[in-house]
Amino acid sequence: MAASAARAAQRVVIVGGVAGGASCAARLRRLTETAHITIFERESAVSYANCGLPYRVGDLITDDSKLFVASAAKFKSWFNVDVHTSHEVLSIDRKARTITARDLASGREFDAPFDALVLSPGAQAIRPPLPGVDLPGIFKMKTVPDAAAVRAFIEKHKVKSAVVIGGGFIGLEMVENLVHRGIQVTLLEAGPQIMPPLDPEMVAPIYDVLADKGVVVALNDGVAGFEQGPDGTGLVVKTAGGAAYPTDMAMLVIGVRPDTALAKAAGLDIGQRGGIRVDEHMRTSDPGIFAVGDAVETKDWITGDWTLCALAGPANRQGRIAADNIAGRSSAFRGTQGTSVVGVLGLTVAATGASEKALKRAGLAYAKVYTHANQHAGYYPGASTIDFKLLFDPKDGAILGCQATGWEGVDKRVDVVAALMQKRGSVYDLEEAELCYAPQYGSAKDALNLAGMGRVAANHLRGDHPLAQWDEMARVRGEVEAGTAVLVDVREPAEVARGTVEGALNFPLSTLRANLDQLPKDKRCYVFCQVGLRGYNATRQLLLSGRDAVNISGGWRSAQQAAPGGGASKL
Amino acid sequence: MAASAARAAQRVVIVGGVAGGASCAARLRRLTETAHITIFERESAVSYANCGLPYRVGDLITDDSKLFVASAAKFKSWFNVDVHTSHEVLSIDRKARTITARDLASGREFDAPFDALVLSPGAQAIRPPLPGVDLPGIFKMKTVPDAAAVRAFIEKHKVKSAVVIGGGFIGLEMVENLVHRGIQVTLLEAGPQIMPPLDPEMVAPIYDVLADKGVVVALNDGVAGFEQGPDGTGLVVKTAGGAAYPTDMAMLVIGVRPDTALAKAAGLDIGQRGGIRVDEHMRTSDPGIFAVGDAVETKDWITGDWTLCALAGPANRQGRIAADNIAGRSSAFRGTQGTSVVGVLGLTVAATGASEKALKRAGLAYAKVYTHANQHAGYYPGASTIDFKLLFDPKDGAILGCQATGWEGVDKRVDVVAALMQKRGSVYDLEEAELCYAPQYGSAKDALNLAGMGRVAANHLRGDHPLAQWDEMARVRGEVEAGTAVLVDVREPAEVARGTVEGALNFPLSTLRANLDQLPKDKRCYVFCQVGLRGYNATRQLLLSGRDAVNISGGWRSAQQAAPGGGASKL
Repeated sequence: MAASAARAAQRVVIVGGVAGGASCAARLRRLTETAHITIFERESAVSYANCGLPYRVGDLITDDSKLFVASAAKFKSWFNVDVHTSHEVLSIDRKARTITARDLASGREFDAPFDALVLSPGAQAIRPPLPGVDLPGIFKMKTVPDAAAVRAFIEKHKVKSAVVIGGGFIGLEMVENLVHRGIQVTLLEAGPQIMPPLDPEMVAPIYDVLADKGVVVALNDGVAGFEQGPDGTGLVVKTAGGAAYPTDMAMLVIGVRPDTALAKAAGLDIGQRGGIRVDEHMRTSDPGIFAVGDAVETKDWITGDWTLCALAGPANRQGRIAADNIAGRSSAFRGTQGTSVVGVLGLTVAATGASEKALKRAGLAYAKVYTHANQHAGYYPGASTIDFKLLFDPKDGAILGCQATGWEGVDKRVDVVAALMQKRGSVYDLEEAELCYAPQYGSAKDALNLAGMGRVAANHLRGDHPLAQWDEMARVRGEVEAGTAVLVDVREPAEVARGTVEGALNFPLSTLRANLDQLPKDKRCYVFCQVGLRGYNATRQLLLSGRDAVNISGGWRSAQQAAPGGGASKL
Repeated sequence: MAASAARAAQRVVIVGGVAGGASCAARLRRLTETAHITIFERESAVSYANCGLPYRVGDLITDDSKLFVASAAKFKSWFNVDVHTSHEVLSIDRKARTITARDLASGREFDAPFDALVLSPGAQAIRPPLPGVDLPGIFKMKTVPDAAAVRAFIEKHKVKSAVVIGGGFIGLEMVENLVHRGIQVTLLEAGPQIMPPLDPEMVAPIYDVLADKGVVVALNDGVAGFEQGPDGTGLVVKTAGGAAYPTDMAMLVIGVRPDTALAKAAGLDIGQRGGIRVDEHMRTSDPGIFAVGDAVETKDWITGDWTLCALAGPANRQGRIAADNIAGRSSAFRGTQGTSVVGVLGLTVAATGASEKALKRAGLAYAKVYTHANQHAGYYPGASTIDFKLLFDPKDGAILGCQATGWEGVDKRVDVVAALMQKRGSVYDLEEAELCYAPQYGSAKDALNLAGMGRVAANHLRGDHPLAQWDEMARVRGEVEAGTAVLVDVREPAEVARGTVEGALNFPLSTLRANLDQLPKDKRCYVFCQVGLRGYNATRQLLLSGRDAVNISGGWRSAQQAAPGGGASKL
């Protein structure tokens, strides 16, 4: 009878026991006690927190054991899931419905049958075959042993300098943690900006923070190879631009690539972005084979295009959804918003939805506004500015995405927008959002209300508040030179003295009404202030006086962040 | 020509220049340059931040000037709004379309005509005519002079002890700030709990925080009167229950009442909750008279009932909406969610939507779940628990409200729920919410995902996860005594040793599968663990084994907070 029960039971094999795979196993067990669930994981542990690895290097996480969310033993005792760590799955025989696995310790290979297969292989750190890439002292950051190796190297070689290659999430987190350890860091980024998923002006404040900590940042210059140091110790990082950075060690964290080797070899569909193609039920082109996590392509929430998203939250949800479908429940993945956050030496940068770059690439119409409001009441100690960018549909105000940068409360604002986007919310919903307010938590008009309301997005749509952007300044300059427009700085003279746009007239809002006659009636007035609020009020005055007026979104603060190279004088 | 323009211009009179009135004036000026806008404010300043007053007493806000958001001079220069401070509006002549105002400094009375009138008188601190209520040393906390008076009294009399009467928002903020000043505080609350808008179990952690700081809390005992101290200095606060608290000073902060005197005298409709009755355009029963802010009744977001809501955010939005409608735009107030937050000595307590008490009062069907998840990844230093309560519609999962208590990230979670509620979101949206995750900001499965997902709300609706509540224990006890049910603690023995429910069997989840046969097949199993996660997994095992099983929401941590008096042993 036991044998007959075993024959009848569904055999589920899961390849990869982190995030998506682990979630899938746990969820599936909650749906059925009879399935035989087996996880094969090539690393020596399952369910480890790879998002914590940089902080293990920085000693904020003081013990490897804290990184292990659930052990193989716990999977067995809680969930009756058989976990084979240090086992690599070599191939899938779709016809025979088996996989072939290798025990990495003994070298033994064996087949395992499946009725359902879940691929959760994750992504591989990109490691181009550069000259010298295998020299000692060059590390990636994907697994607990990677972090341990970096720690050991730092301690053994008393590392004083490091080059971090790649300015994305992991690169910036590594910079922070190496700085924490007192190491002099150089950050090398092949592209024109760090944090490529965000728009360039929104990451501008990061450069200042890095500079404050003595981090050298080199943009537009990719790694070309590595050499051993001249005295036989250390490294020299050579760049495509011809630079050479002598250093004690290097982190090669230039991104990840979906691990699709198994899926490709088995003939499963691969998408144009290089990930395993799945439907909304996380089914691959073989209906008995599912795939989840960093290895798959999913639909972008805004553009509807296929996208890669190496984030833990979606991976976990996809694992649950695969389990549901294996158990006969038709749950579906809604798509990926790309909500993400990174902390850099106290500064927080977060985003959700589409960036302006992504909207341009997708050819979607959008409008944008910038605000620079405090995270909490200005009169309560510790107020600091959140630089906020909101992208929305110019027709109906539907929110397309947002990005925020600041010292406190950044993730909160992005999470609220992410939640509204989950419901296809609009700028009008931001305007009416009823958020927590006490002086130490927010403002009666929260930064998000401001972004949605009056001086910005919703009024822009209603036609009350024509907006221009600093990136349109070439056109604006043309109008000014043609004599059809003027630039009007409505800040007080003391503010103007600290810097303004060349050729701008100064009409402080506080005395604008009295001096209105001095402004031409037949020229468009491009108005700006420090952050946009006074500019909005001035624009309304000018419009109501019968003039053509436009407020430049985000004011002088946005100008300073928008100008290429950070120098607003170039505008 | 000037005279004719003046005759044609709309005359708008605003009574009260804080929050709603100030927002209305600024917004209206942005919509029209021709209206004559006049604010009458009985205090000596407009647009002051009364939410900051407790922190001025505590010296966190170091200067009165920080509390003034906008001066009368700024209203004139920015907005061309005439502000009359220290002017009380005495009456409204609806037929003549005038108000009568008194200059409080000179005593002069005069009439002012209006085409549109906006009432933003706010709410009055409740000050019952108790014996001794006018003795020196008894204060309210509504205006900047109130805070100054308390500061001066503390300094002059070297105050060492204070009794705070009223355990609501202002009461708790006053307790915090008096504690900051080294004052021994007694908190007196007439009702059975502090923070009456929340459910009692959600404020339970506050008592511990107060006790840690030496604050004495007396519940269920209201103030009956005041006497001078026996030696001629200080006070004795006498209670209805017969207690007497000798003290150096007392804060009488037992709540506020809409200031409807003007509206009543003018014959405007007053609602059954005692506020001025307005429609969604903020119009009173006289279509030329608007009312906004703490003085009005609005529609509750969930119950649809009329409600009073003395919060700055809604007041500001209502002011804008009144201005829109005066300017001929038909904007509407969506209703009040009651989103609110209070900080108490480092602990944060926040809520949005309906409480369980409110749902019971309204006779609305609801289900509830408790979770106790960390604010960020457990493996990152500084992880702390957020006690979270979610109320939702048992039929479709629509979110009805939430409450949260903890040390960090509390306002973020409530704001996300508030945003989802703005879009009539459900537990399924929480389950799928894609929120910021890096170890120092959240978790791959955020506390909100958990509340919506698997072990809780969404699965409860799908029937996967039958839930019971600690407040049903009388019924559960009955079933146990009748032999139809058992209580099963699935925690490890070391945890059970620190306390459990009397009579509960102990079957740790880690060995439950092996010992399943020892659990009766014919009795319902009421399962609990520490916070609910293991209980959920155990419940699924028991259900899948053919047993009737129910998980007790929130586990032993909820039990400790739910038990009256805080002692779970009474369950």
